[in-house]
Amino acid sequence: MTYTLVLLRHGESEWNAKNLFTGWVDVNLSEKGIAEAIRGGSLLTEAGILPDVVHTSLLRRAITTANLALDAADRHWIPVKRSWRLNERHYGALQGKDKKQVRAEFGEEQFMLWRRSYDVPPPELAAGSEFSQDADVRYAGEPTPKSECLKDVLTRALPYWESDIIPDLEAGKIVLVAAHGNSLRAIIKHLDGIDDETISGLNVPTGIPLVYELDENFKPTVAGGRYLDADAAAASIAAVANQGK
Amino acid sequence: MTYTLVLLRHGESEWNAKNLFTGWVDVNLSEKGIAEAIRGGSLLTEAGILPDVVHTSLLRRAITTANLALDAADRHWIPVKRSWRLNERHYGALQGKDKKQVRAEFGEEQFMLWRRSYDVPPPELAAGSEFSQDADVRYAGEPTPKSECLKDVLTRALPYWESDIIPDLEAGKIVLVAAHGNSLRAIIKHLDGIDDETISGLNVPTGIPLVYELDENFKPTVAGGRYLDADAAAASIAAVANQGK
Repeated sequence: MTYTLVLLRHGESEWNAKNLFTGWVDVNLSEKGIAEAIRGGSLLTEAGILPDVVHTSLLRRAITTANLALDAADRHWIPVKRSWRLNERHYGALQGKDKKQVRAEFGEEQFMLWRRSYDVPPPELAAGSEFSQDADVRYAGEPTPKSECLKDVLTRALPYWESDIIPDLEAGKIVLVAAHGNSLRAIIKHLDGIDDETISGLNVPTGIPLVYELDENFKPTVAGGRYLDADAAAASIAAVANQGK
Repeated sequence: MTYTLVLLRHGESEWNAKNLFTGWVDVNLSEKGIAEAIRGGSLLTEAGILPDVVHTSLLRRAITTANLALDAADRHWIPVKRSWRLNERHYGALQGKDKKQVRAEFGEEQFMLWRRSYDVPPPELAAGSEFSQDADVRYAGEPTPKSECLKDVLTRALPYWESDIIPDLEAGKIVLVAAHGNSLRAIIKHLDGIDDETISGLNVPTGIPLVYELDENFKPTVAGGRYLDADAAAASIAAVANQGK
């Protein structure tokens, strides 16, 4: 008896395409991202891995990716659950800024600390920022952050993993999690027991389903899982690693 | 204290456009239907009526309409619930047939009985039909029909109204129901207490939100509710009434 988990990072967003720090800013998919999401659904169909339930963040690039992929896989009708705990890492004051400009302004070392260190968050979002969540009703009453490092993401994602995703797996459902580069990295770090240094080198490609078979302790039977298009995943991982250059 | 309910019939489907009986056949929205769904969301925004939860059928024309409308209204992130009990009326053996041809073959009287009578269902779907639900996992274990009259739709929709929609209304949520011509007619018949004869003349236009304010007994404070674009609704109702002519 194993459990089947499918992780899907949203397709390219309009701000990915512009090379801006996005975080919790709720941008759309780009045309390329829409195509990636639909192809992600086709890959599920081809593999015969058909989700019984989907969990998404509260951000439209993940929600639209799930909608398009599930429609392409003829699974548009499955139950849907959402949580801010699956949101992208909050990039604080860097949100909306050009990655190249931030690198030029703050230097390579600081840039890489903010992007890839496990426990150094960027500066907090300023009060009154246009990107503030203070007036955003979708987060009302929730302990939402003003900036996060990957460790923070793991800390707020794990309670949802335990309370909502594991019960669906235990019920024998194939679970799709449609989320973001860093919320998925956090889950992968937890699943594969990756240490705080090594996780900095792990990238998740957009739009390619990553399938984990989990044992009775919810640990992967194969470390790292398997991408449904391994060649495309490898090419995409190389491209993501070059962001900001 | 009143409760707010929004009913939204899906935008034009590919088979609406071809004038075919659709029922439970899971067809896509047409390009016009996509535009209608997006406009439905814009009408919600303009009216400031922002759903807190959405209920859909298990058919993609309603699901996609909800997805597009909610994205347009910036409410893509709300909780989603689905049930086959909100599906379109099952049109039995008529599914996939041209409305004009059915009228020519069976005559005006029989045609109108099948389309508009309250309690005369069309012939049942034949065993082994390409449109059968027997192998469709989304309906596994459910007492799904092989043909339905409007009375049958009301009988299977009401338990869901009571068990899932009323509790969301009672919790103070603005509830969006994204569904179909006949499942919405069934709900409207119940809400407005419309008799079995009169309901035959009631049509619901596609893509225009119909807003009901309900009192403490879940009865409309204004009979018939109000369409968010009353002029477009009136024009569309006239057009629907001419289908099959």
